[in-house]
Amino acid sequence: MKAVVIGLGLIGGSLALNLKQNKFINCVYGIDLNKEHLKEALELGLIHQEISFDNINECDLIFLCTPVSAIISIIKELSKLNLSKNTSIIEFGSTKESIKKAIPSELKSQFILAHPMAGTENSGPKAAFKELFTNAVCVLCIDKEVNNFHEHRIIELLSSLKMRLVFMDEKEHDHHSAIISHLPHIISFSLANYVLACEDKKHILNLAGGSFSDMSRIAKSSPLMWQNIFKENKENVLASLKDFKEELKKFEDFVNNDDYEALFKWLQNANELRKIL
Amino acid sequence: MKAVVIGLGLIGGSLALNLKQNKFINCVYGIDLNKEHLKEALELGLIHQEISFDNINECDLIFLCTPVSAIISIIKELSKLNLSKNTSIIEFGSTKESIKKAIPSELKSQFILAHPMAGTENSGPKAAFKELFTNAVCVLCIDKEVNNFHEHRIIELLSSLKMRLVFMDEKEHDHHSAIISHLPHIISFSLANYVLACEDKKHILNLAGGSFSDMSRIAKSSPLMWQNIFKENKENVLASLKDFKEELKKFEDFVNNDDYEALFKWLQNANELRKIL
Repeated sequence: MKAVVIGLGLIGGSLALNLKQNKFINCVYGIDLNKEHLKEALELGLIHQEISFDNINECDLIFLCTPVSAIISIIKELSKLNLSKNTSIIEFGSTKESIKKAIPSELKSQFILAHPMAGTENSGPKAAFKELFTNAVCVLCIDKEVNNFHEHRIIELLSSLKMRLVFMDEKEHDHHSAIISHLPHIISFSLANYVLACEDKKHILNLAGGSFSDMSRIAKSSPLMWQNIFKENKENVLASLKDFKEELKKFEDFVNNDDYEALFKWLQNANELRKIL
Repeated sequence: MKAVVIGLGLIGGSLALNLKQNKFINCVYGIDLNKEHLKEALELGLIHQEISFDNINECDLIFLCTPVSAIISIIKELSKLNLSKNTSIIEFGSTKESIKKAIPSELKSQFILAHPMAGTENSGPKAAFKELFTNAVCVLCIDKEVNNFHEHRIIELLSSLKMRLVFMDEKEHDHHSAIISHLPHIISFSLANYVLACEDKKHILNLAGGSFSDMSRIAKSSPLMWQNIFKENKENVLASLKDFKEELKKFEDFVNNDDYEALFKWLQNANELRKIL
């Protein structure tokens, strides 16, 4: 089989590396609008070779690994290519509702929406590494119109990357992602901006231990990617932030009112996380 | 020399383990009001033996490793013991201003305030481990009345634990700690409580990747210890929370107003953290 990865950043690059070692795939092509990234991906050996978009109908597998807005643009272009019904299209975008709406009816049977919940604070081809997906959850949003041939092919491939597959619909995905991934990023970006604005930031950061480092790590993530995610998932993101702020308000009220008994119970309740995570 | 560690939790227990291997110290005693903890510390070999509080004037080094409120009570008891001027007293509390105020003038020359910025989400003697302090920052608040003999003895001992020593006064310490340590804990406890209150929490937590796990880890920390810290450092904690909430508000306004250009700049600014941390 031939595969093409469009978007050779952390996710696409790491995927390409894995596809190159898949014994059913003999050629991994790469496409990236950023010529520097394409060059790096070739130099780093993430892909076998580049290919022009007009020629990708020779591929059996098309992976879309760009930000969501670009995925939506690419889908429009794909619908003009007269792809074979045996070509599987998989996208790895961070939000799902807007992508799902963009899929034209003629591509629905061969189009899989997936989201590997994997990443680091680094981006670009140089950030790619083979083990990125190991033990990660991969959410699959499979439309009822998707052909079993494509569904099974993709499940086999993703599970071979040692990912734990979880099925849900696109609305659930976007809601859950806002809480479990997008909100932590808002918090981390806010925490970093707050400390960076402190007059004595160097003195403060000199003291940073594990808790601050862990919490601020993802504030180093790609602004372009996260601008896109916050835009695409606006409603869910704002709702989760509102609920989170209510918890902060509870804490603030307990301390303001010297209600340390209620504070203790609230802290104790948070410990319940141990039982689940 | 003989040393006594009062409070045999994560910090005290880990310290005792290190003191046991110090070639200048031939006996490490332990005291803990929690009899279960004392038993565990003996069974785990964290200390050589227990000692009664009334007999600690035979020790050359007294380490106070309990929560801040208990440290303040112990200081009152210490002042009644008629300690030798050659006995060094070191406390490892999480906040400094209230402890500093509690030191009676007769103990000032031999009393060192220190804070190893080290910890995990686990507590109690079983959480102790020898490498806890390796590469951690240790803040020292040394009053001008402290005798050089005690200052140098403690610096030698703490640096032998491979800690990076940083000097500041107690006000700076409590202000910086609120930002770099206490605020991250407020955030983590809030995030955990928010997700635990979600109707579909198990489904959501099933998706947890690195970012959520990193950010919620310290929500598993000891409620008793953190209740005490938030109480002791109330003013600084509320001030840092207020400023952090202003950053969240900026994010909220950008997204609410679809001002994605300003959002991008704000995200990009957070990336500056890379240059310092």
